[in-house]
Amino acid sequence: MLNTLGNLLSLTTFGESHGLAYGGIINNFPAGLTIDLNKIQYELDRRKPGQSAIVTQRKESDTVQFLSGIFDGKTTGTPIGFIIENENQKSKDYDHIAGSYRPSHADFTYDQKYGLRDYRGGGKSSARETINWVVAGALAKQLLSDIEINAYVSSVGDIFCEKPYQVLDFSQTESNEVRCPDAETAQKMIERIKEIKKEGNTIGGTITCVIKNVPVGIGEPVFSKLQAELGKAMLNINAAKGFEYGSGFCGAKMTGKEHNDLFNEDFTTKSNLSGGIQGGISNGMDIYFRVAFKPVATILRPQESVDKEGNPVIVEGKGRHDPCVLPRAVPVVESLAAFVLADLFLINKTRNINNF
Amino acid sequence: MLNTLGNLLSLTTFGESHGLAYGGIINNFPAGLTIDLNKIQYELDRRKPGQSAIVTQRKESDTVQFLSGIFDGKTTGTPIGFIIENENQKSKDYDHIAGSYRPSHADFTYDQKYGLRDYRGGGKSSARETINWVVAGALAKQLLSDIEINAYVSSVGDIFCEKPYQVLDFSQTESNEVRCPDAETAQKMIERIKEIKKEGNTIGGTITCVIKNVPVGIGEPVFSKLQAELGKAMLNINAAKGFEYGSGFCGAKMTGKEHNDLFNEDFTTKSNLSGGIQGGISNGMDIYFRVAFKPVATILRPQESVDKEGNPVIVEGKGRHDPCVLPRAVPVVESLAAFVLADLFLINKTRNINNF
Amino acid sequence: MLNTLGNLLSLTTFGESHGLAYGGIINNFPAGLTIDLNKIQYELDRRKPGQSAIVTQRKESDTVQFLSGIFDGKTTGTPIGFIIENENQKSKDYDHIAGSYRPSHADFTYDQKYGLRDYRGGGKSSARETINWVVAGALAKQLLSDIEINAYVSSVGDIFCEKPYQVLDFSQTESNEVRCPDAETAQKMIERIKEIKKEGNTIGGTITCVIKNVPVGIGEPVFSKLQAELGKAMLNINAAKGFEYGSGFCGAKMTGKEHNDLFNEDFTTKSNLSGGIQGGISNGMDIYFRVAFKPVATILRPQESVDKEGNPVIVEGKGRHDPCVLPRAVPVVESLAAFVLADLFLINKTRNINNF
Amino acid sequence: MLNTLGNLLSLTTFGESHGLAYGGIINNFPAGLTIDLNKIQYELDRRKPGQSAIVTQRKESDTVQFLSGIFDGKTTGTPIGFIIENENQKSKDYDHIAGSYRPSHADFTYDQKYGLRDYRGGGKSSARETINWVVAGALAKQLLSDIEINAYVSSVGDIFCEKPYQVLDFSQTESNEVRCPDAETAQKMIERIKEIKKEGNTIGGTITCVIKNVPVGIGEPVFSKLQAELGKAMLNINAAKGFEYGSGFCGAKMTGKEHNDLFNEDFTTKSNLSGGIQGGISNGMDIYFRVAFKPVATILRPQESVDKEGNPVIVEGKGRHDPCVLPRAVPVVESLAAFVLADLFLINKTRNINNF
Repeated sequence: MLNTLGNLLSLTTFGESHGLAYGGIINNFPAGLTIDLNKIQYELDRRKPGQSAIVTQRKESDTVQFLSGIFDGKTTGTPIGFIIENENQKSKDYDHIAGSYRPSHADFTYDQKYGLRDYRGGGKSSARETINWVVAGALAKQLLSDIEINAYVSSVGDIFCEKPYQVLDFSQTESNEVRCPDAETAQKMIERIKEIKKEGNTIGGTITCVIKNVPVGIGEPVFSKLQAELGKAMLNINAAKGFEYGSGFCGAKMTGKEHNDLFNEDFTTKSNLSGGIQGGISNGMDIYFRVAFKPVATILRPQESVDKEGNPVIVEGKGRHDPCVLPRAVPVVESLAAFVLADLFLINKTRNINNF
Repeated sequence: MLNTLGNLLSLTTFGESHGLAYGGIINNFPAGLTIDLNKIQYELDRRKPGQSAIVTQRKESDTVQFLSGIFDGKTTGTPIGFIIENENQKSKDYDHIAGSYRPSHADFTYDQKYGLRDYRGGGKSSARETINWVVAGALAKQLLSDIEINAYVSSVGDIFCEKPYQVLDFSQTESNEVRCPDAETAQKMIERIKEIKKEGNTIGGTITCVIKNVPVGIGEPVFSKLQAELGKAMLNINAAKGFEYGSGFCGAKMTGKEHNDLFNEDFTTKSNLSGGIQGGISNGMDIYFRVAFKPVATILRPQESVDKEGNPVIVEGKGRHDPCVLPRAVPVVESLAAFVLADLFLINKTRNINNF
Repeated sequence: MLNTLGNLLSLTTFGESHGLAYGGIINNFPAGLTIDLNKIQYELDRRKPGQSAIVTQRKESDTVQFLSGIFDGKTTGTPIGFIIENENQKSKDYDHIAGSYRPSHADFTYDQKYGLRDYRGGGKSSARETINWVVAGALAKQLLSDIEINAYVSSVGDIFCEKPYQVLDFSQTESNEVRCPDAETAQKMIERIKEIKKEGNTIGGTITCVIKNVPVGIGEPVFSKLQAELGKAMLNINAAKGFEYGSGFCGAKMTGKEHNDLFNEDFTTKSNLSGGIQGGISNGMDIYFRVAFKPVATILRPQESVDKEGNPVIVEGKGRHDPCVLPRAVPVVESLAAFVLADLFLINKTRNINNF
Repeated sequence: MLNTLGNLLSLTTFGESHGLAYGGIINNFPAGLTIDLNKIQYELDRRKPGQSAIVTQRKESDTVQFLSGIFDGKTTGTPIGFIIENENQKSKDYDHIAGSYRPSHADFTYDQKYGLRDYRGGGKSSARETINWVVAGALAKQLLSDIEINAYVSSVGDIFCEKPYQVLDFSQTESNEVRCPDAETAQKMIERIKEIKKEGNTIGGTITCVIKNVPVGIGEPVFSKLQAELGKAMLNINAAKGFEYGSGFCGAKMTGKEHNDLFNEDFTTKSNLSGGIQGGISNGMDIYFRVAFKPVATILRPQESVDKEGNPVIVEGKGRHDPCVLPRAVPVVESLAAFVLADLFLINKTRNINNF
């Protein structure tokens, strides 16, 4: 449904960067799951501003409060309502842009579509919305405890993690500020971000996500193919510009003979250019995909722009902004992947009378 | 909703490659539109097998029959039901694979998920499903008659159309078999496909789609951002492996200073790396995106595989298959884009009390 | 979703009384069920015109053709497409009403809403739409083979079947033309309908539906309570004016002490004024409800009305119409009940991690 | 969608009687509407406990806090999040029922479906959920400011307001505690409720709702007929047992000649047994319907029941309960009606290209 994530398991959200709170409602989460609240806070902390020198220095405690749907530590099967209060909005930082349109922001499109906008920061278009997704994803991860979901920063600008994911040690992802499990590449990325930050500039990059132990059969045959639901979720992330899975855009250069994944006798495949999905349905191999992020639009340098009447103005980012959104986006990507999988996992429970 | 395309304007479909017919139901299409049936057939003909030497030589008339929702040449506002009969199924071509799993096909995942599958060709997983989408898209195009949607083949294997879309003449797209508007590149692509075909092999590629004259305001703010709905639709295409819009994966290498699109005084932007969308909402600039297609999995050469019990078998594509799916996928990409836009266009009619 | 029945298991339909065909798509029906096509035709025959002297004498074969989703006699889990051709439309019967508005028909509202209408018969507003529901319901009944769903005509005009459902023998419902299992009452009803028919008039009535062996737990807690989903489905039947379940409107006259259903030690209840549902969820007792039907609006007598310009005209029903819609509506009520139950039954498979 | 009210304009909610808060998210509410918060509080006060001697004496301030979607007093078009804190939960009142099943409550069905339940009061099954609906309905009323929606208590037990709604003065509904606009009947109802309360018993009744000035064209043709969406909403109210509109169950006793509503030359109808709806679509006449409410299940008298193991126990309502839920349900009925109408009103904006 419009503005809702998920088909059966669903997440509906609200919140603006300078409103009172963010929050959401998770519907149709199964009953009886014991919830570890620390694991949820852990994910929120991975997304939190102020966590390192290479992200925005805003300070928010970002603690979630569950208002319903969990009783005596267990999910009750009824709607899970939650809020995260906004604590550190500095609306004054934005007074200068109330009447101006920042380049590559949503100021102009919101004003045109709705006839008005909350001009304090991004309002609804702020990426702070992703905090809701992390809460929901952290719950979904607990539901899918057998499935391993590991995202990491695979490039920053033109610095790429060249190693294939199969040789990376995901236990190292959290060992550095940029969340790249290869220490050497991570160091280069961090330095690049620090340079960029010094210039008041910003930089883009990519996140790769690898999902192991997905049972065979997840995904639906027509308009809810697994890759389509994953892609849709990822493309809703504020700075996302692209999504590819398996061989992705490289696969478009290949021939069928090169690209086909031959079967082993246990139904695993010798190669996995398919990225763990055939016909929209998981085949038990690793699912992996990559998301492209544009550089953050707010730069701490003067830019030519226009005001609401079309008059030339100079806008200049002030306040505390991310020079690179990638490190904080890693848990967001994992969260969305977890939620999408959980939704399709539940639906799959109903797809075959032999399961009943 | 699950297995339905669209939120308000919706398309629900059915059909299997070797069943009696394909078809669909379009719900909530506005009343009062005079429908040009020839334009619908024109789009179906662009997708049709047998149309040239570089596509499958199967013959199907692929004519659509509207069963409801159109009266005296106009849409009535009530559900539009349609069917396209299957004429040229050669089930026998598939007897040899009833018990085997073809590499990089959905045979295995369908069998696992559902406990059985229609093994005659792809069954439900066949790309013939896209014929339904072309019917729906051809209607959506007529609803959005002011909007121009032009897709074209932008690469085949490692042959790329290097020219930016702005200098291409889309009136030339239909002038060659491969549907690349640049004649020189088209010729190279066609030769490449012919070589590949001779080898019994297949090849991948990319399609670029450019949408002009989209009004400002199309797209929704949270989980139904315009790029997310477009991406979801495209990633449901059978061979699609990736989607990027605007600067896409290249944008991930850039800095904010390079990437930001500065405004002109008329609210157009000097550059358009955003791809016509800000905050999930169209900004009036051209929307453009690119879809990656893997090579067709069926190759006319023996491949090692396994049967249902995991025993080694040799499978070999027989019958009439596409060496490259790209030329026939061009109208499919346009159709999905049109349908997604039409859905969000209608929703936008309700988003502001000043419109009422 | 709009104009779709069901949440997970869904039915989307099309068709107009004088179009080429009716049909529908059932999505997310579980795979692996062996379908008995005779049982489907049996239900269609119960709804068919011309089946007895007290219903319309139109002749239609009303045979369903499945176009997808069933292979080798079993459901495949993929969309089930079906059509029923219209055979016996006599459009000429309606020429006289093309420009006129029949009293208590949808002619005026359709014209106003859509700006045009298919004036041949009811067009989209015709109750022939219910044929689609019977197909879907007949499949749902086979999915829920342990559940017994029995509807019957409980009143025609002021002739009521006074016996409580518990003493009726549902095996007798089909033994008479009016589908009331009490022979004596049935006889009175049939006579009443014959009188009414002779007058060129029509008459209303009620249908009671009793559902036995529903497992505990079917229904959702907030806006998808079992009675709400049942009620919504029934109120979509063309002539339906009311829905009540359990004690219904009589319960509104009672006190809590009288109305409460006390538990037995096996968790059945001593009385069942609740109608088998508590908090929107089935409790294992019989579910029973009643639907009110208005008299058919088309009467074979002259009535004062207006044309499109508001000028007075006389309209007079011609052709072959039902003097009483109740006998043919019995399978429609059962079908909708079956489909709603099947949808919520499937959803319930996902509501508790202990089921997984 | 499951557990969501509305198709395009949607309400998703959460909350349990003894949790921290209730709340909801309204999606796709149009931008630009100036909201009068006092009018929202007015509706909440009409529903509030403790407002008179004939309702529960629980005290709650029941104030709503909007967390997003309203800026500078106007709706922004983005999701409206709101919460209402629970203040006066006395969980101890419920300790005695933690292991017991109260007759005609949802204790047993929740335990069976979910494997656990919040046993403090009704938990999710509590009618306090309706507070969310009143918030959403109060907003919808402001959107539909030209439409008048008036509900009133039309019967309590066997005391009926015999006057037709046309002669009632709805400005008098709020002049008495029971919300019946006929003073004489109201007095009898109040006395009856006081007697019942003295006995520790409870009593049912009906609410009639009359909606004036609905434009022609609201409602959708297949499974989203106006009466079906209204009925579904009403049947989700916790104690609702039936819904009828227009002639309702009385219409089932009539003949077509009696029941048909003949047109005037201005397309109004001479009678209105149709209840303002033809073919599922509003025809501009008054819409009216009636909802049956069972007596509250909690009575302040000992009742035989069983515990979780099936052992006989005596349960006895304690604390502060409504002897009759009708007076407080009046704003709930109006709210749901307003929300359903607003949803279909918005959808109707997209149904005809002549509107664009």
